[in-house]
Amino acid sequence: MERINVAIAGLGGIGKKVAELLYARHEHYARTYGVDLRLVAVCGSRAGRADPQGLSETDLEQLLPGHCGPDFILGAEPHILIEAGPTDIRTGLPGLDYIGPALDRGIHSIVISKGALVVAGPRLRQKAAASGARLKVSGATAAALPTIDLLEYGLLGCEIHSIEGILNATTNYLLSAMAEDRLSLQDAVLRAQGRSMTESDPSKDIEGWDTAAKLLILANFGMAADLSLDDVAVDGIQHLTLAAIDDWRAQGKVPKLIGRVTRQNGGFLATVGVEPVAADDVFALVSGKTKALRVNTDVMGEIVSIGTASEPAGTAAAALKDLEHILSALTVGTGE
Amino acid sequence: MERINVAIAGLGGIGKKVAELLYARHEHYARTYGVDLRLVAVCGSRAGRADPQGLSETDLEQLLPGHCGPDFILGAEPHILIEAGPTDIRTGLPGLDYIGPALDRGIHSIVISKGALVVAGPRLRQKAAASGARLKVSGATAAALPTIDLLEYGLLGCEIHSIEGILNATTNYLLSAMAEDRLSLQDAVLRAQGRSMTESDPSKDIEGWDTAAKLLILANFGMAADLSLDDVAVDGIQHLTLAAIDDWRAQGKVPKLIGRVTRQNGGFLATVGVEPVAADDVFALVSGKTKALRVNTDVMGEIVSIGTASEPAGTAAAALKDLEHILSALTVGTGE
Repeated sequence: MERINVAIAGLGGIGKKVAELLYARHEHYARTYGVDLRLVAVCGSRAGRADPQGLSETDLEQLLPGHCGPDFILGAEPHILIEAGPTDIRTGLPGLDYIGPALDRGIHSIVISKGALVVAGPRLRQKAAASGARLKVSGATAAALPTIDLLEYGLLGCEIHSIEGILNATTNYLLSAMAEDRLSLQDAVLRAQGRSMTESDPSKDIEGWDTAAKLLILANFGMAADLSLDDVAVDGIQHLTLAAIDDWRAQGKVPKLIGRVTRQNGGFLATVGVEPVAADDVFALVSGKTKALRVNTDVMGEIVSIGTASEPAGTAAAALKDLEHILSALTVGTGE
Repeated sequence: MERINVAIAGLGGIGKKVAELLYARHEHYARTYGVDLRLVAVCGSRAGRADPQGLSETDLEQLLPGHCGPDFILGAEPHILIEAGPTDIRTGLPGLDYIGPALDRGIHSIVISKGALVVAGPRLRQKAAASGARLKVSGATAAALPTIDLLEYGLLGCEIHSIEGILNATTNYLLSAMAEDRLSLQDAVLRAQGRSMTESDPSKDIEGWDTAAKLLILANFGMAADLSLDDVAVDGIQHLTLAAIDDWRAQGKVPKLIGRVTRQNGGFLATVGVEPVAADDVFALVSGKTKALRVNTDVMGEIVSIGTASEPAGTAAAALKDLEHILSALTVGTGE
């Protein structure tokens, strides 16, 4: 049975869930793709562990300080890297330091954190093309909501005119709380924090940057655009007042934070901002932590995808969907 | 440049649209997959034409009587068959006579008509596995609405607990007309016929059989079920009264014809019937000719896909999406 070695960089909630699912699905991978899949190296920001024969679940609870960083992870010579570190959309670090060298060496890379893709998406795509490595980004683009799959696979052959999405769960929850319970943004944030539904500092969500990051990755990977964050006109929900929401309600409309990319004059127009959505638009029913993407095409018309998966399991499962797509391509004809 | 020969069986509106798109996309296939794709044989029920060097668009307007049937089409030795004939869900003919022998010979088959898949889906899957041919069914499962892709690709690795869908555009249009304009079923049918939105005999739609056929294919191909049409409890919209619709409206609900497959006790429960749908369910906004599928999974939660493509272009485009998936697999590493 062919041996496939996997490494995970980043051991927060999502990285740990990825590892847990990898162990649970070991038999599934053997049965379906004829591979013996081993986790040969893992690390967080300060500690990690490697074993060329494969780490056990117990090993993951006994990490060794200092065993971390790109050289440590890539030194384990994985066939596949799963990058699940923190996101910094200004520097792309630390993910970029793992993914770039991995792709250069022909290591298939599954990226969950958005930073490196936002900062250097087209360049990473070129590295992958040059070395023949696969670069998969489902976990970074609204995770369990099928977005990049829909653009790349489900609508293959179509011209995609535009995409628009409700891509950030935190702001969608806040907007629902403001519109349905007439909470101020500040009170909505306090409620979300009380329910552990947002980070201690949700400003990147509130100001629209998380939506912009996902939108950018979808445009660059799913519409063959070559945009940078500076090309996106980004506004968030921070200026939205209850009075504006009341005005919209009087017209039967609800506020949603929408990211949108439209083909225009041979280029792309990309925006993020709050918009009133009519009650008979399915986006009006995308409430709370639900996310959605609408795609307009030439011959396949309009497609809407709506998803409600919870974190971190949904994100981890999205990354492992990417893993199976790689396994499927690597083992053509040998699997089911 | 590698030569790929394609044959089309069935030259109704959809088969003709498939041919039209194939010509329009010839350069795209060359650029993306490095293949010279030629249409080497086509036929309807009474006439057809073949040319080993590839038919021109003009050739398609000058079909030769008697040049038709499985021996004629398969005699042209295509690499890929696109089957776009009429659907008969009781006999599977004429499609079955083309698809079965094609798969036996290792010819990749893209199936648009539902009959053969309903009558012999699992058997055809086995034939494909035995010969190594690919069997693709996007065009038979609600076409441009990504359904089988979602199950097979977008949710890969998940356990699918249940699927439920609004899968038949004609009945959905009729139900919208009944609920919104208080038309009787008979008057709604007359309106649909006046707008060319239904066949002259829409009974297979109205009695739920078209929904059942699509549901069965989705279950057998997307959930690894092995159901026959007799396993599906099928009811249609023929018994629905305006009084029942009024009662539901008083509760804030709208009628939808829902096909549903649920895993139960190690098997599958499959039903088709009219149900009242609550106003805050996105299915309530799936009106007119729009279709939708909801999938419940273990780790990826609930995913809803909604599509509005028009016929025949949307169906033809779905079949050609399948074609690109085959080209992509055949030319791994040689394309972009």
